[in-house]
Amino acid sequence: MFQEYDVIVVGAGHAGCEAAAAAANMGSNVLLVTMNLQTIAQMSCNPAMGGIAKGQIVREIDALGGYSGIVSDASMIQFRMLNRSKGPAMWSPRSQNDRMLFSQKWREMLEETERVDFYQDMVKALIVENGKVKGVITGLGHEIKAKAVVLTNGTFLNGVIHIGEKRFGGGRVAERAAEGLTEQLVSLGFQSDRLKTGTPPRVDGRSLDYSKMEEQRGDEIIGGFSYLDVEKPKTQRSCWITYTSTEVHDILKTGFDRSPMYTGRIEGTGPRYCPSIEDKVNRFAERDRHQLFVEPEGWNTVEIYVNGFSTSLPEEVQYEALKKVPGFEKVRFFRPGYAIEYDFFPPTQLQYSLETKEVENLFFAGQINGTTGYEEAACQGIMAGINAHLKTRNEKPFILKRSEAYIGVLIDDLISKGTQEPYRMFTSRAEFRTLLRQDNADLRLTEMSYRMGLASQERMDKVIQKKQDVEAIKEKMGTTSLEPTEVNPFFESINSAAIMEKQKVEKIILRPNVSLDQMRSKVNTIDQLLNGYSAESIEQAEIQVKYQVYIDKEKDLVDRMKQLEDLEIPEQFDYKRIVALGAEAREKLLRVRPRTLGQASRISGINPSDVQILMVFMGR
Amino acid sequence: MFQEYDVIVVGAGHAGCEAAAAAANMGSNVLLVTMNLQTIAQMSCNPAMGGIAKGQIVREIDALGGYSGIVSDASMIQFRMLNRSKGPAMWSPRSQNDRMLFSQKWREMLEETERVDFYQDMVKALIVENGKVKGVITGLGHEIKAKAVVLTNGTFLNGVIHIGEKRFGGGRVAERAAEGLTEQLVSLGFQSDRLKTGTPPRVDGRSLDYSKMEEQRGDEIIGGFSYLDVEKPKTQRSCWITYTSTEVHDILKTGFDRSPMYTGRIEGTGPRYCPSIEDKVNRFAERDRHQLFVEPEGWNTVEIYVNGFSTSLPEEVQYEALKKVPGFEKVRFFRPGYAIEYDFFPPTQLQYSLETKEVENLFFAGQINGTTGYEEAACQGIMAGINAHLKTRNEKPFILKRSEAYIGVLIDDLISKGTQEPYRMFTSRAEFRTLLRQDNADLRLTEMSYRMGLASQERMDKVIQKKQDVEAIKEKMGTTSLEPTEVNPFFESINSAAIMEKQKVEKIILRPNVSLDQMRSKVNTIDQLLNGYSAESIEQAEIQVKYQVYIDKEKDLVDRMKQLEDLEIPEQFDYKRIVALGAEAREKLLRVRPRTLGQASRISGINPSDVQILMVFMGR
Repeated sequence: MFQEYDVIVVGAGHAGCEAAAAAANMGSNVLLVTMNLQTIAQMSCNPAMGGIAKGQIVREIDALGGYSGIVSDASMIQFRMLNRSKGPAMWSPRSQNDRMLFSQKWREMLEETERVDFYQDMVKALIVENGKVKGVITGLGHEIKAKAVVLTNGTFLNGVIHIGEKRFGGGRVAERAAEGLTEQLVSLGFQSDRLKTGTPPRVDGRSLDYSKMEEQRGDEIIGGFSYLDVEKPKTQRSCWITYTSTEVHDILKTGFDRSPMYTGRIEGTGPRYCPSIEDKVNRFAERDRHQLFVEPEGWNTVEIYVNGFSTSLPEEVQYEALKKVPGFEKVRFFRPGYAIEYDFFPPTQLQYSLETKEVENLFFAGQINGTTGYEEAACQGIMAGINAHLKTRNEKPFILKRSEAYIGVLIDDLISKGTQEPYRMFTSRAEFRTLLRQDNADLRLTEMSYRMGLASQERMDKVIQKKQDVEAIKEKMGTTSLEPTEVNPFFESINSAAIMEKQKVEKIILRPNVSLDQMRSKVNTIDQLLNGYSAESIEQAEIQVKYQVYIDKEKDLVDRMKQLEDLEIPEQFDYKRIVALGAEAREKLLRVRPRTLGQASRISGINPSDVQILMVFMGR
Repeated sequence: MFQEYDVIVVGAGHAGCEAAAAAANMGSNVLLVTMNLQTIAQMSCNPAMGGIAKGQIVREIDALGGYSGIVSDASMIQFRMLNRSKGPAMWSPRSQNDRMLFSQKWREMLEETERVDFYQDMVKALIVENGKVKGVITGLGHEIKAKAVVLTNGTFLNGVIHIGEKRFGGGRVAERAAEGLTEQLVSLGFQSDRLKTGTPPRVDGRSLDYSKMEEQRGDEIIGGFSYLDVEKPKTQRSCWITYTSTEVHDILKTGFDRSPMYTGRIEGTGPRYCPSIEDKVNRFAERDRHQLFVEPEGWNTVEIYVNGFSTSLPEEVQYEALKKVPGFEKVRFFRPGYAIEYDFFPPTQLQYSLETKEVENLFFAGQINGTTGYEEAACQGIMAGINAHLKTRNEKPFILKRSEAYIGVLIDDLISKGTQEPYRMFTSRAEFRTLLRQDNADLRLTEMSYRMGLASQERMDKVIQKKQDVEAIKEKMGTTSLEPTEVNPFFESINSAAIMEKQKVEKIILRPNVSLDQMRSKVNTIDQLLNGYSAESIEQAEIQVKYQVYIDKEKDLVDRMKQLEDLEIPEQFDYKRIVALGAEAREKLLRVRPRTLGQASRISGINPSDVQILMVFMGR
């Protein structure tokens, strides 16, 4: 019934969909196998994409030619650029999305992708011969052959759902769990472990009183994730902010003795950085309130996602507590929050290509590797798809460095350090975050992808044009000067000091409260200078000029780190005397005694600042 | 957590959604409980609504104020009025629908309906006290109180899915079955039995060669189901027709020994009138081909529904056979066809209101009563919703007669005759089908519904206007005459005999090949006569005039039947001498020995023509 495929992707969540699209667009014949073709690319948790560090990842996926950015743009109901008031390294795009539209758009794009076939069935086992994967075996008994297999099973492997003292099997609520695969992988030599994650209740928006909450509107100008032109919505929907209180916390505590977490019925470790409300109440006992984001699930639905109230407490406790939150006095539940426990495979068992060390041509991506988050899953998906394709062509893997992309940071963290809890991306995990900005993901990544045959000509052409324009604008900024008579009225209007003699634009723009866009409407020379260039190119040129010092410094650091990679650490190096090192770092360094600084940097628990400290003490 | 509701509806398929909407619109506080809020109003089988007799039902639901017609209109990708070449009693609207849009639109409409609350959970048991239902108990352990409960469990009660020799539990493929409820109902005294139904494979439209099939386009003028004005699509998608062959049948036969039907692993009876392809090959061995309709699943999907190829054969056999169908040579499966067995409750256990005889305030609607088809389910849903509401208000039930609606025929059939196989509606089941036309469902039903407080003022106003207009047009047709000079050129153009002297329009329109619409463009007087009236009113007036003889005859029959209802059959009436009766009818009449003609007509297996024969022999 089935041809032999180049690549079989198991699971059609964020990781699986990106993997299938990438491999197919590079030329592989791909089969996407999923338990339910009607739930492709479900947003199982909150109806949103991006956010701090995650938004950068979506931009990187897009720059590589993935679909997550396009789908997010096409299905957004609200867009905000977070951290606008901070430096551009912190700017992070985030969208609220229409849950159904998101899924529908993904499916449409995959159907329009040549060489992606679909099949609905559960994968029960892999076909493995001589340490190489040769295909999959499905619940209906089909043996489907392939040169490579990408597993993206999400929370489905032996998934168990907990709501208070109730527990039942399931990969998501109302969906089956997948069985058999973990056991086979373990018999093949893999180590597996349990993780858990949670989701908040969904409630009826008609039962809420928004007058008691703070409105959170979208940006006036709707940005987006994709570097391509995706049509944006004409209007937006607002989110709302409200808060828990000590009264709410007290009610939550009455359920702790029936919480699966506290009674020890959940073995898996939960996400430290996306904790349940009971975790927050417990860990931050000193805080008398926690923020809740009240997020609509789409354009035309009254269903509401209560972001920040993830919980596996008994449903009555969830309900009684939530009722005390301002605006929720008359809340009606659509369904309760719940926790889910599932199998994952510690990612130290992977190579940098996301191929497993144990079984050749077998790739893992997404939550199966211990991560949490749609964006984290999707970026592993595209990388696994790319590398599965390359492997079938006997080409060398595509690996992104920590200095090239958040994706590089994420995969390096997973593989060199492993993870004991669901791994989530933060800007603080990236030592070169001034380089890894959301505005330049295309400049960083599109050409690499284009050369591999993934990013389209259209993308490449846009990048070439942008580069030329940015250089041209920078050139003009360096050669154009403004006369005091022309620019001083503007400075006065923003309470900035006047100039006495003419000054170059590239100098003026260094003033913290001055931007090209702002000056443009007031200063004719600037308007002429920028005439004909896209907003993106102008922004890019401005960032490069304004932050050149920081960017250069970080580039320099990257170069130095490269050299230091092989720098040997003396065998008897005395870690104990370096008090600046944290206790955990010191302990681990003593135990492992890394041979080189590179090796030291990849030990779990050793962070970039520890490495910097070592460098100082080694005389660098 | 929950208020006490007036009505709880269990299940959110076609029956459950209509029940919830009807009860809420009449003023009940309703809770709709479903296992999965993301699969509301799924078209589990073909992506189409209406068709012969079923289209009439959708029109009736709409006339009563139900939502199925509006949802179908809003999500249609193609519309056809079937049987246009026959008399208007046979005209049957049918739409192809976008499966996702259909579900989405239903959910939107329910969310916009005041007094409908939603809750996602599985109902495990009913709360029954002293023979009265008091609420439900859910999987999560909630006891939710209500004055009445409507069960619409579809194929989920102890559902078992079969594909060849594989079998697994499930309410639909990839969805859980519901357990516990049947067992409780049986313990309460209900009789339950098993039925089965099937669905064909879904395939990848990109793998088909449409040049080998016949195109089936939608009507040029898109009609619709709703009497309200619902925006219709600007374009339509085509379906395609192809055929099986003896070669296909031979391949299918190779799997018969592994078919769950033939090996006896399925106990339930299948739908005689919507048989599986293996049933058709088996039962109609003389036919060397069967028609297949190749139906797209929506606007923007390549998924295709292979209508006519319902099967539970092993998947390889499905595949090998389908590959021999013209256009399917390179077919790729999305998922195989399968059969599903499920519990139903023989509907003789119900009252005419759809309330169960055994447990007060408990109503059943849809497949749980042994029917098949979305339309059959939906119309029971609206009736159960109406009657559940009325019961909670201590008002007398709303019952439609066989002469008033197909819905009346369906419920009367179910209750008086029961069913041994999935019950499907046909025009032949209705003895008064000249009265029960799709064009006059509003005239038949809207006022009744309006008086109960269900149909809206808008609907009622439209009906009043239509009635006035129809009367006015008919009046004018009776008073306006056409001169030979004016009308003869038109007659000549359609090869119809010329007239010698002036003739009234109501006479001219009796000519079989003459219609008002057609005359209008050629005959000025007609155009003036019709000026300002809606197409619907004109069509209605024309049908009433053109078919008046037949309509009057049938109305007369209805009146006579009413009188005959109580006509006593002599105790020793000799059924044996009436050879015109079928063997089955004779046998049953002998066994039951009905007291009245009315009772005779309601015996299972006695059809309207048997009753007519009895009438003749009783001297009427």
